[in-house]
Amino acid sequence: MIVQKYGGTSVGSAARIRRVSRRIAATVKTGEQVVVVVSAMGHTTDRLISLAQSVNEEPPARELDMLVANGETITAPLVAMCLQGLGVPAVSLSGMQAGVRTSGHHSRARIRDVKPDRILQALGEGMVPVVAGFQGVTEDLEVTTLGRGGSDTTAVALAAALKADSCEIFTDVDGIYTADPRLVKTARKLTHIQYDEMLELAAVGARVMHPRAVEIGELYNVPIHVRSSFNDRVGTMIVAQVPMEDRQRVRGIAQESNVAKITVVGVADRPGVAAAIFEPLGKAGISVDVIVQNVGRSGHTDLTFSVSESDLKAAVKLVKLATREVGGRVSSAGGIAKLSIVGTGMLGMPGIAGRMFRSLADAGINIEMISTSEIRITCLVRRDQVEKGVRVLHKTFELDRD
Amino acid sequence: MIVQKYGGTSVGSAARIRRVSRRIAATVKTGEQVVVVVSAMGHTTDRLISLAQSVNEEPPARELDMLVANGETITAPLVAMCLQGLGVPAVSLSGMQAGVRTSGHHSRARIRDVKPDRILQALGEGMVPVVAGFQGVTEDLEVTTLGRGGSDTTAVALAAALKADSCEIFTDVDGIYTADPRLVKTARKLTHIQYDEMLELAAVGARVMHPRAVEIGELYNVPIHVRSSFNDRVGTMIVAQVPMEDRQRVRGIAQESNVAKITVVGVADRPGVAAAIFEPLGKAGISVDVIVQNVGRSGHTDLTFSVSESDLKAAVKLVKLATREVGGRVSSAGGIAKLSIVGTGMLGMPGIAGRMFRSLADAGINIEMISTSEIRITCLVRRDQVEKGVRVLHKTFELDRD
Repeated sequence: MIVQKYGGTSVGSAARIRRVSRRIAATVKTGEQVVVVVSAMGHTTDRLISLAQSVNEEPPARELDMLVANGETITAPLVAMCLQGLGVPAVSLSGMQAGVRTSGHHSRARIRDVKPDRILQALGEGMVPVVAGFQGVTEDLEVTTLGRGGSDTTAVALAAALKADSCEIFTDVDGIYTADPRLVKTARKLTHIQYDEMLELAAVGARVMHPRAVEIGELYNVPIHVRSSFNDRVGTMIVAQVPMEDRQRVRGIAQESNVAKITVVGVADRPGVAAAIFEPLGKAGISVDVIVQNVGRSGHTDLTFSVSESDLKAAVKLVKLATREVGGRVSSAGGIAKLSIVGTGMLGMPGIAGRMFRSLADAGINIEMISTSEIRITCLVRRDQVEKGVRVLHKTFELDRD
Repeated sequence: MIVQKYGGTSVGSAARIRRVSRRIAATVKTGEQVVVVVSAMGHTTDRLISLAQSVNEEPPARELDMLVANGETITAPLVAMCLQGLGVPAVSLSGMQAGVRTSGHHSRARIRDVKPDRILQALGEGMVPVVAGFQGVTEDLEVTTLGRGGSDTTAVALAAALKADSCEIFTDVDGIYTADPRLVKTARKLTHIQYDEMLELAAVGARVMHPRAVEIGELYNVPIHVRSSFNDRVGTMIVAQVPMEDRQRVRGIAQESNVAKITVVGVADRPGVAAAIFEPLGKAGISVDVIVQNVGRSGHTDLTFSVSESDLKAAVKLVKLATREVGGRVSSAGGIAKLSIVGTGMLGMPGIAGRMFRSLADAGINIEMISTSEIRITCLVRRDQVEKGVRVLHKTFELDRD
C-alpha cells in the first residue's frame, strides 16, 4: 500500500488534476493499493484568506479554519471524479470522514490520531480514497486545519496509521539535493537521506518538506519518497538509515538568507538575565536561532543572537523593554545569512568543523557566529557572501561526487 | 426565535455579506434569537459544476455533492466572522454540524430529520448559528445536497425543528405579487398568502419559492416571510389561513411560457394506452402537465398533453416509440404558454371559471387546453398572447384593488 500526496501546484488547474489522476491510475494499474492526499488548488487558500479579511480584518481562527478547509474539500472530489472518468473507482473523503482527529488549536492543530475505518472500507471495495489534506476535526467535530506543512503531515500520518509501505510526496522539485541546484550547478540529487538529516536541513532553510511530517515519518518509520509530479524520475527516499558508505560524509549544504542579529552589550551577568530577554520573544512567537554569550567581565556580559529579518523590528522592541530591567545597550543588524552543513557522518569525524571554517576563511568569508548540533554546523555570514559559501563548501566536502 | 435565510444574490460579494451581517446584527439587537441559513455566493455553485465537468463530463453524483457543498460552507464562516467583527457572537455550522440528516439520494436528497443540538447549544451560549444551507449528511456521514430550492428547504426545516416563530426568506424580490409586476403595473404585493395557494402558484410558474420548502412550512405550520434583502419593507407571509375577506377571491395570476403540446391522433381506445404513452416519459424524468383525452369514436381516440418546451424533442421521440405499440399519429407544437388563476376563494365561487373564459374570449385569446385543481384554473394559450391574458385576468378579478 502506498500513500501519494499531491501539493497545490500539482493540482493547480483542471489540466493538472487530469495529469495527476492519470498518474494515480497508472500506479493503481501496477496492482498497488493507493491512498491519495491532496492540497488546495494553487492559490485557493490565499484567495479564501483574503476574502475573509475583506469581511473581518482579523478573522477568528475557528471560522477561518471552517473557511480554508474548503480548499482541500474542493480538490478531493475533483480528483475522485476525474479518476472515475478514467475508469478507476475512487471516493473523496474530508479530513473528518478520513478519521483525522486533531487537537482544538485552530489554524495549527496537531493530529491526535487517525481512525482510518472509512479509508480501509474504501480500499476493501477496490476504491482509491482521495483524502482532503491539511484538515481534521476535534472530538466535537469542529473543523481544524494543521498549519504549515499540513498536507504533508496528513499524508505521513495516514501512511503511519495504515502501515503503508511508503508515502510519496509529489512536489515541484525532483527530490533533496546536496545543495540548492539554483546556486550550485554540480549539486546532486540524493537517493536517500535520513530523517534526522532531513530535519536538520529543514531547520536551516531547505524548504522541500516540513519538519513535522518528517518527524511523524521518523516516529512510525514511514519511508517518505519526495519526488516531482512533473516527471517520472525517482526522487529522494527519507529513511531511518541510509547505506553505510553514504553515512561517512557531509550530506548536504543549506542556506537561509532572511537573518538578522541583535546584540546586547553590558547586561548584568547574573541568573535570570537570559530568561528576561528571551521569554518575551518566545511569547511573541519570535524564534531565536543562534545565541552566543561571551564570558562575563566585571559583572557584565555581551549577548548576541539571531532572528528572522522579518521579526527584527518586533524583537528589538521587546529586547529594549527587557534591558530596562537587566541593563545593557541594544544594537542590531540585518543582512545576514545562515550557511549550514548537515550529515550524520559528522558524528564520527572530528575534523569536519575545522575544514568548514578553513575553507570559508580561504574564500575570504568571515564567520560572524557559529551554532552546532550533533549532525549540523551552522555559520552566520554576510548575506552577500552566502552563495559563494555554499559553492565553496559543496566543493570542499566533495558533494559533487557520487 | 427566527430563522433567516439569505440566498446567493444576497451574499454574492464581500460587500453584500457585510450588508447581510449588519441586517442580522440589527435583528439580534431587537432581542430576537436568530438562526441564519446561507446559500453559496453568487455563481459559486455554477463555477464548481463547470470545474467538475472539465475533469469528468458526467461527474458522479456523490462526488459532485462533495464538491458543490463547499459553496455553502464558504459562505457560512464568512458571515459568521463578519458578524463577530460587528460584535455579534456567531458560529458557522456545516449541514452535518447543524444536524441536517438526509436520504442518500445525491444531488436531490430529502431531509429525513434535523437534530439541532449544536444549534441549540450555540443559541444557549448567546451565539448566532450560521448554517450552510442546501446540504446535509446521511447516517454514514456522506455529504448530500438537496437539489432545487435546497437552502429554502434547510431554512424552513430548521424553523420547524427549532419551533421558531417564523422563517424569513430573504430574496431579490419584495414578496409575492398578484401577478408578475414586470407584466402588470398595477400588481399588488400580497401581505398574506396560504401555503396551498403558494404551492399552486409555484407549480404554474411563480419562481419566488420552491414548493418543497412551502410544503414543509405547511406540514409544520411554520409562517414563512418572503421579503427583500435589499430593503426593510415587510414582504409576504405564507401562512395556513389568510384573513377571511382575502379568501373570498382570486389571489394571483401566474404564467409560464416554456410550454409545448403533443397530440396523438387515432390511438386505440382501450385500457393501458395512456400508461404505454406516459410511463416512458415519467421514467425519462419528463413532467407531463395538462392532459386532454377526447371521447373515443369507433374504437379510437385523440390524446393531447403539454410538456416543457425544453423536453419536447425527447418527449416526441418517446411517444413515437410508444405509438408503434398503441397506434396513432404524433404531432407537436411549441410556442404555447400556461395562464393560471389561483385562490382558495374559488372553492366557494362557481362562476369564476366562466368569468375567466369569457374575459379571455372577449380579449380575442383562444384557449387551447384547460386544466383545473380545486383552487386553480389553468388555460393553455398561444405564447404571444399570454402577457395580454395576464393583464386581462388581473383586471377581471380586480386584483389591483386592495
